[in-house]
Amino acid sequence: MAAAPSVPGYRYGDPTLPRSPVTTEDLAQLEAVLLFTDDDLAALRRSGDILLPHTQAIVDAFYGFFGSHAPLHDTFCTPQGPSQEYQAHVFARFGQWIADTCRGQYDDTWLAYQQEIGRRHYTGKNEADGPAAAGTPPFVPLRYVIPLAYATYATVRAFLEKGETDPAAVERMAQAWLKSVLMQVTLWSQPYVRDGAW
Amino acid sequence: MAAAPSVPGYRYGDPTLPRSPVTTEDLAQLEAVLLFTDDDLAALRRSGDILLPHTQAIVDAFYGFFGSHAPLHDTFCTPQGPSQEYQAHVFARFGQWIADTCRGQYDDTWLAYQQEIGRRHYTGKNEADGPAAAGTPPFVPLRYVIPLAYATYATVRAFLEKGETDPAAVERMAQAWLKSVLMQVTLWSQPYVRDGAW
Repeated sequence: MAAAPSVPGYRYGDPTLPRSPVTTEDLAQLEAVLLFTDDDLAALRRSGDILLPHTQAIVDAFYGFFGSHAPLHDTFCTPQGPSQEYQAHVFARFGQWIADTCRGQYDDTWLAYQQEIGRRHYTGKNEADGPAAAGTPPFVPLRYVIPLAYATYATVRAFLEKGETDPAAVERMAQAWLKSVLMQVTLWSQPYVRDGAW
Repeated sequence: MAAAPSVPGYRYGDPTLPRSPVTTEDLAQLEAVLLFTDDDLAALRRSGDILLPHTQAIVDAFYGFFGSHAPLHDTFCTPQGPSQEYQAHVFARFGQWIADTCRGQYDDTWLAYQQEIGRRHYTGKNEADGPAAAGTPPFVPLRYVIPLAYATYATVRAFLEKGETDPAAVERMAQAWLKSVLMQVTLWSQPYVRDGAW
């Protein structure tokens, strides 16, 4: 797919991104440990029908969550206060990320962008956003990246419950989201980890 | 609490363990990001009433899960095959870990043992088990530690469903478990992470 020009810094599908050190064979093993199957991919795709019309509301819910947790909010702040433009960039990418997670094409192109997302939480945090991010902390500590899997899952689940009346169908989609988000935070942890230990 | 002498290598409560670099203030911020509250602690304690009588069955389910996933099973294997004694030690500690998670006393003593558990997945993997672990891989890659949160949550949830008929009560306990396990894998990741990046 082509990168959406309306989302600042979005590079999923950009052929100039480096290949991920994580191979599709590594990913297959990770999926096995997560009990992630084709049924999960199908459930993620179904979830898109419910979630994507409400992308802005989901993004707003997450924006509120970040705003009410100082260690998360601080990642957008300079000593002079929060950078509104930087936050706007990040949350625009988050909205696009919801669609990408639902699309569920977990291949080399996707892995390359996952690696870039991980890098952007760590050594590359402020690169993509130029002056908008200047003066904000140089990285997001990993201790906040992993547990964000929970808030993401819980937020998505609340929106699934609003859009689907069958509790079993909600549960199926929510479990697929939980597995996918755990897969992604695991991939994003790669740049943080000591050589050879990931 | 005193370390249970019947569990090989179990050191929760051992006053000679080093203090964790993670403080109780760090833990409180982690709990906030996980939306982990006193209600979760209460739910974990209630879950113990259901789970602990079935500890051996839960351990057996996990043993089967490891056995059917090569990257997990390999962590117990020498070039000559699996070390039965090492597996017996690890799964005895896993059984005790279920009780410790339900007990929910997440204080400095608990943090010290969490740090030790993390270390035992990485640079200290084979130390506690002496000859039983000799010749097995020197560490568990972090890529498998984080996603194990899912199988743990799903396994525990299946046992909660067998022991509690009210779906809302099951859900409450299962969510508390999910948050606690995510908290713990986050703590266990600390030794793997580059200096200052955790």
